[in-house]
Amino acid sequence: MSLETLSETRSFGGTQGVYRHASQATGTDMTFAVYLPELALHGRVPVLWYLSGLTCNHENAMTKAAAQQWCDEAGLAIIFPDTSPRGEGVANDEAYDLGQGAGFYVNATQDPWKPHFRMWDYITAELPELVADNFAIDADAMGITGHSMGGHGALTIAMTHPDRYKSVSAFSPIANPTESDWGRKQFTAYLGEDRDSWRAHDATLLMTERGYPGEVLIDQGANDQFLDLLRPESLAHAMMARRQPGQFRMHPGYDHSYFFVQSFMADHVFWHAEQLV
Amino acid sequence: MSLETLSETRSFGGTQGVYRHASQATGTDMTFAVYLPELALHGRVPVLWYLSGLTCNHENAMTKAAAQQWCDEAGLAIIFPDTSPRGEGVANDEAYDLGQGAGFYVNATQDPWKPHFRMWDYITAELPELVADNFAIDADAMGITGHSMGGHGALTIAMTHPDRYKSVSAFSPIANPTESDWGRKQFTAYLGEDRDSWRAHDATLLMTERGYPGEVLIDQGANDQFLDLLRPESLAHAMMARRQPGQFRMHPGYDHSYFFVQSFMADHVFWHAEQLV
Repeated sequence: MSLETLSETRSFGGTQGVYRHASQATGTDMTFAVYLPELALHGRVPVLWYLSGLTCNHENAMTKAAAQQWCDEAGLAIIFPDTSPRGEGVANDEAYDLGQGAGFYVNATQDPWKPHFRMWDYITAELPELVADNFAIDADAMGITGHSMGGHGALTIAMTHPDRYKSVSAFSPIANPTESDWGRKQFTAYLGEDRDSWRAHDATLLMTERGYPGEVLIDQGANDQFLDLLRPESLAHAMMARRQPGQFRMHPGYDHSYFFVQSFMADHVFWHAEQLV
Repeated sequence: MSLETLSETRSFGGTQGVYRHASQATGTDMTFAVYLPELALHGRVPVLWYLSGLTCNHENAMTKAAAQQWCDEAGLAIIFPDTSPRGEGVANDEAYDLGQGAGFYVNATQDPWKPHFRMWDYITAELPELVADNFAIDADAMGITGHSMGGHGALTIAMTHPDRYKSVSAFSPIANPTESDWGRKQFTAYLGEDRDSWRAHDATLLMTERGYPGEVLIDQGANDQFLDLLRPESLAHAMMARRQPGQFRMHPGYDHSYFFVQSFMADHVFWHAEQLV
């Protein structure tokens, strides 16, 4: 697969790059960002996947999460994929939370989404292979995190493929989408009316049914504007009922913004590094 | 009130003492331990209350929790009270989890416990006054923690008197005693059949109804032998449903013993110090 370099910029000891490629999974051009720490000059480094939330593309976390400093220090690459296919000929919706910018990290089975909205395959299979072929990253040492819809993606992907993702965390995840307006609407559109098909994409249900073999770190702001949609209490209950190793932290005063994500990014990077490096 | 010194021992930069006094609350002699850090030589210091679990007296945590090093470093006093009245003439039961060594930090209203089992009053009122009168501690800067039954006591006391206890944490607390065999039996014995009288002594119910104005730290071992009795998932759900600032940590491999408590004691001492000092 060929890769087009859109930009490469020095950042701390390493390089922040933005790349485009023709995706087989989505049938569209996809743009993503990779930060390589200085350590990658000397060999392959572990990699942290950062999945973004609703309305975001590859750029939001790259510019606002302030992860580069910590990844350079920890010797981790970090990858910021887009959150959906985009462009002409790709289905969309007027709502901010459906369609482009709102892929929800599933493979759509329903029209009109089915042809392009295959973010699960894109994130878990195609893109990891692409970056392993093109960058000095160690595909056997991958962790995954994300924010909001991306936290949902990180948790569901890690619990489904714990063999591939050796560490997992989430910021303010959509924690129980089958019981939330951030979930039911999208799953109905992408996956159809059969709720059984939704179960593989609900972190609370997956936590109850299978959990994760490593420790799980969840950070949540107590002043988050979207707490009723995120349903952190459902995931916290499922974690502790399962005796899932890990921690659930509720931080006073923080909201749903990148100011929150940035405030705890160092904790997450070093959390992953401890398990990956 | 007069105080008898049973022992005083140099420990790190400070002094570990054990004392006895005639308690008005319990109508018995009560023994407790106080560690004063080196800083107490120069003025009054904040104080952390450590409430112990079933079968314990003042001595278990004093000798096995390894708190003195961190309290000396942080400049905190730490107090280890007994867990019940004791001695001849004090009611008891053959079970390890009722009667002497199992006061559950309540004021008993039922016979035969009523005359002496007034641990709530003892811990929250009489003993704080006694130690403020006799040691270089700052009664306006008190935090509270505890293990198992003591974690239950710490949480229920702090949520009831947040004005007095400026910080709170717990190790493996009995988190939802009104729904547990560690709770229903004891509350029936001490408080009677009326379950309404139990509500003031259930951390999950208090968390749901009122919460705590500061951050709450809960540590739990995932290999705890008593998880079904502790019910951490109930408290975790109540915390996150309330958006209670704080964190709930489930630590893989640790059991219910003092090896667990000791492993995370530094975290708790500095957690309290950050809020009290």
